[in-house]
Amino acid sequence: MKKFVNDPKDYVPEMLRGLALANPDTLRYVPEFNLIMRSDAPDIDKVALVQGSGSGHEPAHVMSVGKGMLDAACPGDVFSAPPTDYVYETVKLVASPKGVLLLVNNYTGDRMSFEMAEELSEADGVSVRTLFIDDDVSVQDSTYTVGRRGVAGNFFVMKACGAASERGADLDEVYRIGEKVNSVTRTMGMALTACTPPAKGGPLFDLPDNEIEMGVGIHGEPGRRREGLRPAKDIVEELVTAVADDLPFASGDRVALMVNGLGGTPIGELYLVYGLAHQQLADRGIEVGRSYVGEYCTSLDMAGCSITLVRLDDEIEELLRDPAETAIRVF
Amino acid sequence: MKKFVNDPKDYVPEMLRGLALANPDTLRYVPEFNLIMRSDAPDIDKVALVQGSGSGHEPAHVMSVGKGMLDAACPGDVFSAPPTDYVYETVKLVASPKGVLLLVNNYTGDRMSFEMAEELSEADGVSVRTLFIDDDVSVQDSTYTVGRRGVAGNFFVMKACGAASERGADLDEVYRIGEKVNSVTRTMGMALTACTPPAKGGPLFDLPDNEIEMGVGIHGEPGRRREGLRPAKDIVEELVTAVADDLPFASGDRVALMVNGLGGTPIGELYLVYGLAHQQLADRGIEVGRSYVGEYCTSLDMAGCSITLVRLDDEIEELLRDPAETAIRVF
Repeated sequence: MKKFVNDPKDYVPEMLRGLALANPDTLRYVPEFNLIMRSDAPDIDKVALVQGSGSGHEPAHVMSVGKGMLDAACPGDVFSAPPTDYVYETVKLVASPKGVLLLVNNYTGDRMSFEMAEELSEADGVSVRTLFIDDDVSVQDSTYTVGRRGVAGNFFVMKACGAASERGADLDEVYRIGEKVNSVTRTMGMALTACTPPAKGGPLFDLPDNEIEMGVGIHGEPGRRREGLRPAKDIVEELVTAVADDLPFASGDRVALMVNGLGGTPIGELYLVYGLAHQQLADRGIEVGRSYVGEYCTSLDMAGCSITLVRLDDEIEELLRDPAETAIRVF
Repeated sequence: MKKFVNDPKDYVPEMLRGLALANPDTLRYVPEFNLIMRSDAPDIDKVALVQGSGSGHEPAHVMSVGKGMLDAACPGDVFSAPPTDYVYETVKLVASPKGVLLLVNNYTGDRMSFEMAEELSEADGVSVRTLFIDDDVSVQDSTYTVGRRGVAGNFFVMKACGAASERGADLDEVYRIGEKVNSVTRTMGMALTACTPPAKGGPLFDLPDNEIEMGVGIHGEPGRRREGLRPAKDIVEELVTAVADDLPFASGDRVALMVNGLGGTPIGELYLVYGLAHQQLADRGIEVGRSYVGEYCTSLDMAGCSITLVRLDDEIEELLRDPAETAIRVF
């Protein structure tokens, strides 16, 4: 295993400590509960947004904390749901009189932790709602889910809900917006290589040099099928077709197009993929209104990508345009 | 080779096409000369900034074009200097009456192309100056250089010169600032793995599973030495020591600290490295004033990182704080 790691059991806390040190004015690391929160939280004038999941998907979700996005993120260990207690403590730290919205990618372990934390918080008198995100079209049920998985499309739910909460929307309204964005968002990913969790010390699954996994999950779960290695345009065509035909997206639609890297693929290749996807959408009469290219929801060091489409209307597009500030920035 | 690529000879133009499609309002791709320029260039009220180098280092430099950064970038093929003609045509397209500053990482091939383009442009009556960047402390001369190499620290030269030119500084003043930033910037990198150029189809060099290359170049050139794989804290200590002792950076200094990923290392590991580097600088009495964590100058899909320090004074820090806009953004 070739990674920057000391003791593998310290991988997540050492990463979170680095994240807070690099953002001393805006982020706070709370080691007792393994969480990252805005240093100005709680903000009593807005609905608080919290998301959590296993670690290993960075920048999701600890690097998505900030103005216009999450108020806090409570990650578990690599690819493990956060414990209920930690989610509950996170809600306590950021709870506002306007309520708390929990955003949860649809995995059985995460659902259990967040649903129990919601009950505990409500018993304390906090208004809480929980929204499940399930944008992955590749499989119906899967290794860790009943129903579809939540993957990179969760970025758009966070972004739109974050903007709405900054504008002062109430809990039901922020929930409505999140549910609406989730309902028009579709994603599919694929792996060129496996990923290596620090504690495992080797690849999580075997993927031969001449094979790729179409529809892979962000924890390396099986997707639709394995195929031989192919030119980029064929891979992109298969992803775009699967995603566009699912909602379906139709000629005349205006969309946000995201090409998300899974951790080990360089940005140059992601732009090459973007160009092919953009062209294939144009051929279907689908107009790209907003573009996102980079890493949004990764699977450790996996080489591969996912493609996400969001059907835009004026309301969603305006919320996506609102400013936001997180740890992930360039300048 | 597991990459998103069609015909390897189209890798760079397909990437540039995707980059322009994703940024239709701000960037223009000129296929005849393989360049990316601001769509609002030339701006006659400012010194124009141009950088070029081999491709494969993205986001450097094509994704560093934008307001407050470069006016254009003219990349060569992967790890190859751009032809003189293309540099010359790039200068023509963005030349302003206030002059043009060419920023060039110190490699023999790049120097030749840019120096000849400078001569051709001056014969046309354009005021041109060329600044060479050589922040890499790892080796004195190297495979492709006389003198030190230019690596990720070039970001700070681009950023400071970009801000100064937006503020209206003249050519000599922008040059002075670039030279000053370069003189207080030091970098060293290391590789966990080799990188794979699309046209080669396999790793550029052999690096056994239990070895790392300290001081590696961004084209896979040899660094100081190979060592056995070690815990992150030992690797970071060696990099921080090499960089800090070189200028040297001393107790009481205020610095910008950049942890730059080389392409195949996930952001979570880079933040872990950041935390260790920040602590080691604190132990030396060096204060981090600005933090940069992510990919700035890569080597295709190489796993590894570099650490850069810039000694800050009020002038440099103000220029680094100025706003800028490039293709690389999150929202």
